[in-house]
Amino acid sequence: MTSDSSFRPVPPAAISGFPEWLPEIRQVEQSWLDVVRSSFELYGYTSVETSAVEQMDTLVSKGDTSKEVYGLRRLFASEDDTTDSRLGLHFDLTVPFARYVAQNFGKLDFPFKRYQMQKAWRGERPQEGRFREFTQCDIDVIDVDSVALRFDAELPRIACEILSAIGIGRFRMHINNRKVLQGFYEGIGAVDAMAVIRAVDKFDKIGVSGVANLLRDLDLDSSQVDKCLSLAQIRVADLSFVDEVRALDVKSDLLDAGLNELSFVMSELADVPDEQVEIVADLAIARGLDYYTGNVYEGKLVDFPTFPSIFSGGRYEDLAGSFIRRRLPGVGISLGITRIFSKLLAEGLIQPGLKTPTQVMVVLPAEEQRAATERVGNVLRRRGIRTEVYHEPDRIGKQLKYASRKGIPFVWFPPFHGDGVHEVKDMRTGAQEVVDVETWPITT
Amino acid sequence: MTSDSSFRPVPPAAISGFPEWLPEIRQVEQSWLDVVRSSFELYGYTSVETSAVEQMDTLVSKGDTSKEVYGLRRLFASEDDTTDSRLGLHFDLTVPFARYVAQNFGKLDFPFKRYQMQKAWRGERPQEGRFREFTQCDIDVIDVDSVALRFDAELPRIACEILSAIGIGRFRMHINNRKVLQGFYEGIGAVDAMAVIRAVDKFDKIGVSGVANLLRDLDLDSSQVDKCLSLAQIRVADLSFVDEVRALDVKSDLLDAGLNELSFVMSELADVPDEQVEIVADLAIARGLDYYTGNVYEGKLVDFPTFPSIFSGGRYEDLAGSFIRRRLPGVGISLGITRIFSKLLAEGLIQPGLKTPTQVMVVLPAEEQRAATERVGNVLRRRGIRTEVYHEPDRIGKQLKYASRKGIPFVWFPPFHGDGVHEVKDMRTGAQEVVDVETWPITT
Repeated sequence: MTSDSSFRPVPPAAISGFPEWLPEIRQVEQSWLDVVRSSFELYGYTSVETSAVEQMDTLVSKGDTSKEVYGLRRLFASEDDTTDSRLGLHFDLTVPFARYVAQNFGKLDFPFKRYQMQKAWRGERPQEGRFREFTQCDIDVIDVDSVALRFDAELPRIACEILSAIGIGRFRMHINNRKVLQGFYEGIGAVDAMAVIRAVDKFDKIGVSGVANLLRDLDLDSSQVDKCLSLAQIRVADLSFVDEVRALDVKSDLLDAGLNELSFVMSELADVPDEQVEIVADLAIARGLDYYTGNVYEGKLVDFPTFPSIFSGGRYEDLAGSFIRRRLPGVGISLGITRIFSKLLAEGLIQPGLKTPTQVMVVLPAEEQRAATERVGNVLRRRGIRTEVYHEPDRIGKQLKYASRKGIPFVWFPPFHGDGVHEVKDMRTGAQEVVDVETWPITT
Repeated sequence: MTSDSSFRPVPPAAISGFPEWLPEIRQVEQSWLDVVRSSFELYGYTSVETSAVEQMDTLVSKGDTSKEVYGLRRLFASEDDTTDSRLGLHFDLTVPFARYVAQNFGKLDFPFKRYQMQKAWRGERPQEGRFREFTQCDIDVIDVDSVALRFDAELPRIACEILSAIGIGRFRMHINNRKVLQGFYEGIGAVDAMAVIRAVDKFDKIGVSGVANLLRDLDLDSSQVDKCLSLAQIRVADLSFVDEVRALDVKSDLLDAGLNELSFVMSELADVPDEQVEIVADLAIARGLDYYTGNVYEGKLVDFPTFPSIFSGGRYEDLAGSFIRRRLPGVGISLGITRIFSKLLAEGLIQPGLKTPTQVMVVLPAEEQRAATERVGNVLRRRGIRTEVYHEPDRIGKQLKYASRKGIPFVWFPPFHGDGVHEVKDMRTGAQEVVDVETWPITT
């Protein structure tokens, strides 16, 4: 222990917005991520990992998130090296993916189906569901000139399968179509359909009367406002939304196209809903991001209606257009794993997992038996059994206590008296039996 | 395509020092990381993930790496929020681990055995084997007051097993002990043993005569210099180093203690060396970092002797001492996965992996058969078979070409004529057979 002025025996406090977990919680998070990865791969999506940083130009080209970008600075950069000051941490995985595809265009096979599971960073004020560092799990299909509509149904199916398999509790997928909105608003004679979309998107926050006021500010008359509000209140779990929209008597080819796309997805997903999953055509949602052009998705936890969306996505026509002179439309969904995980954890809905992956702890009776004991460990591990050898000769009671504290299910007793007899104790039942190191099965 | 001034159809160039891989290369990297993780877990080490950032105080307290630290800056931080400016990206996983243990001290079970597989960042000049963003895989045991010596042998065993299992080619583990060096140098009467260690550590770079000059500058006489050089040239694959050191006739209790510790590890690892792995007691290596106090490890690729070390580690007595008033010694090894991977890739020693995890592609003959085709995909996936459905009805030849280009091993033909007959084509042999969707096995 030094006594210089920098000595500070108090550990730094946790950094707000940068979540970290104890091992038994991390183990659960890791099991979630394993489910996500294997589900993505089950559908033939391939892993891509992009660097944590992008050129600042790339990051701020989307505009509205630029204030949340973390730039890098070198503490002691040499004067001739200014490269790093043009770098920032990515705030999502969509922008890096678009850049990656443009950059590697000639070397990828299309339709390019990839998943990406990485941290992203946003310098926003930490609050419920919002972190400065968080894990996103993204899945996208991107293709040249056009993307098959079937992917509009495949991606939400995968998202639902994953969250059901994890068991996050009841959740609802809201699906809408931007062409429905744009076609409808143009059809009723709105001059700026995008402005109407943005106004209606505030439904959750400001309610019917708030949206009505915004719409009147956009010079819509009361009949137009009524139609917008009627559209936004359509939320059904089947195809009846088509008739409900038709009943509003608005004519637009774009609207028709959008209704067809939305109907396709709702039909394809008809077998998905169950006790955990609801799927609704919700004609209010728009997803704030301007680049969506067709079907859009938003996921919500049913039991926490004011909690932010747990996944989102949609179809985009030209995401990589700022990087390459090819039209590369796509469709994608992003799962907010950190957001869901930390919410369920805070609500007490996640049981702590294992403190250690160890399945068997081998007792070390005395130093003279250490070589034989280590050999038992090596044999069990060669057989794929996760095994640790107790680290020092000590009272058996103390060794059992260690195993118990760490939740290790089996304790192995190597031959104590040179009689060659191995025994295993099942820590949950207390049962102990004579076993063979070459054949003993994990019976869990 | 817009024509505003920000339009830039050229994708940003790759950022030097921040490696990214094509999918078929990423797939290999991912398989490496899977081996690392499962090996760590096989020995009962638990996963920890710390945030990418640390308080700047924490990062720069170690001194010599501070010039490589990336600090964060917010592009548009509000004036009352200066928290982010005190954050930096971690440059290794050891400092974050020490901070994590100190911070969660009361909630962890000791000996605490953890692994950590994460990116780290250093703002150093990119060159062979040195990146600005790289994946480290660390494994450490930390305990209160003392750590059992057996871990000094377990960690290098795990490191060797992992790199052998991956098949990185021939590599050599150099092991030394800091007590041997310090005891020896004190024993010959050197005033500043640490300065001698630092001089001898330059052996690889400046050779015998260069080191001799440095030692003379430290006021060692020629007999002392000779002894230092003799010690540094001891490199053996067995326990004979003990006699070689004894022959130099230097007396020191610390030296004796170090020789015992080193002998222990060399004996314990006697079964590890094979065609791929060499293990040597190498009395020249010191590992630059000051915090090592006992056995130290350094890994080298045998076929690329000038390439930097591929892993390193050692025993430390008090890593978390700047955070907590408890002595928390430990022993750890850090595998430089990005460094090894990129080297073997550059040398053409890594064969590209799979472009997709898909095992079966289901042909989509015509739109009318899409529902039935999607059902085949769903059944196969429910059976755990990684399956994609071709994305649009098209000529069979084109669909087969897609499967071939992506390296998908099997193509599934659903019933074409309503006769209920499914067939599977093995793309490697060309053989095609009638199969059942509920029973067809992956025969790879």
